Amino acid sequence: MDEKLIRDPYNPLRYPLLIVISGPSGVGKDSVVQQLQKQNYPVHFVVTATSRPPRPGEVHGVDYFFVSDDEFEALIRNAELLEHAIVYGQHKGIPKQQVREALASGKDVLMRLDVQGAATVKRMAPDAVLVFLSASSEEELAERLRQRHTDTEPQIQCRLQIAREEMQRLDEFDYVVVNQDSHLDETVDQVIRIIKSEHCRVHPRRVTL
Amino acid sequence: MDEKLIRDPYNPLRYPLLIVISGPSGVGKDSVVQQLQKQNYPVHFVVTATSRPPRPGEVHGVDYFFVSDDEFEALIRNAELLEHAIVYGQHKGIPKQQVREALASGKDVLMRLDVQGAATVKRMAPDAVLVFLSASSEEELAERLRQRHTDTEPQIQCRLQIAREEMQRLDEFDYVVVNQDSHLDETVDQVIRIIKSEHCRVHPRRVTL
Repeated sequence: MDEKLIRDPYNPLRYPLLIVISGPSGVGKDSVVQQLQKQNYPVHFVVTATSRPPRPGEVHGVDYFFVSDDEFEALIRNAELLEHAIVYGQHKGIPKQQVREALASGKDVLMRLDVQGAATVKRMAPDAVLVFLSASSEEELAERLRQRHTDTEPQIQCRLQIAREEMQRLDEFDYVVVNQDSHLDETVDQVIRIIKSEHCRVHPRRVTL
Repeated sequence: MDEKLIRDPYNPLRYPLLIVISGPSGVGKDSVVQQLQKQNYPVHFVVTATSRPPRPGEVHGVDYFFVSDDEFEALIRNAELLEHAIVYGQHKGIPKQQVREALASGKDVLMRLDVQGAATVKRMAPDAVLVFLSASSEEELAERLRQRHTDTEPQIQCRLQIAREEMQRLDEFDYVVVNQDSHLDETVDQVIRIIKSEHCRVHPRRVTL
């Protein structure tokens, strides 16, 4: 921080937060974000840009920003992506402009990212608040992946191996919340508590992009 | 910190917190602590030691630890007080042993201190969580002091001057919570959110005394 910043309760300035919900595959990141959306929790929910074509029912600007390959490459070239990755051969990434605009309007910004992506954001925006969602045990995580019925057993074993590696990066995060099976509401409440407490810090975080 | 410590969600160790509720006179510190006690919030509420005699109805070990002048001086001599002050000619202080025992049993410890005392605790225990309670304006604080009907107007002006000086020490605190008039429940909820969020830190605070 370039200058010493202290929150003045008599003259409160609101410093909007950049909140990243992350954690291994199967841990419940989507459920947490969806629950916050259902509650109309007052944050800007980041919309990811993708170069893949929309699927039936998907709405531009709601589910994704659908952009052409050329447009996507221009975003990369101009360093206008907060984070990007290639998923199944298609580009996915988070346009900085969207985040900048929301923060400038005083709104907190919330995004859901894999562990790798969260670490990238932390490097670009050290004042981002990184929340690592975790299962209470590897057995529970395995059980959840099996209940999704989307992966074969070898795929599940592969995801668990990745989860083990992701757990090694926990020290790059700020908070860890254990999303215990069938306690989604408590997990969401805890995420909200973290956001509200961060807004009470005497030395607020300040995100610049 | 001597070693890098990371909370492991698969093998959670609980690191008890030392929480200090502070702020200017009249801001509502006592009300917040009393409300937490009424809710049976699971922390150890610190009992202050004093060398003054008990008033009618006061119970040893509940309202205060009543000790003799000699006993009090022994506590000071042996550096067994976390913080102490002379109030109206009588000693008041917080015995370390009580805090140590509660922390050792895994319990969070909560105490209410004036701003000076809170800063002393932070110097002895840098990992303590310091919460500064504030009014939303100086006018509101003045109004509250008047409503207590315990001070003359010059005394109130003196308290406001001290409050101004105490506000200058805000940067020594971790969190600031504005205790808005007639929103005590929200203030108490915010204190609880801070405690619960602190328990989710990837790099937990560790208090040693």
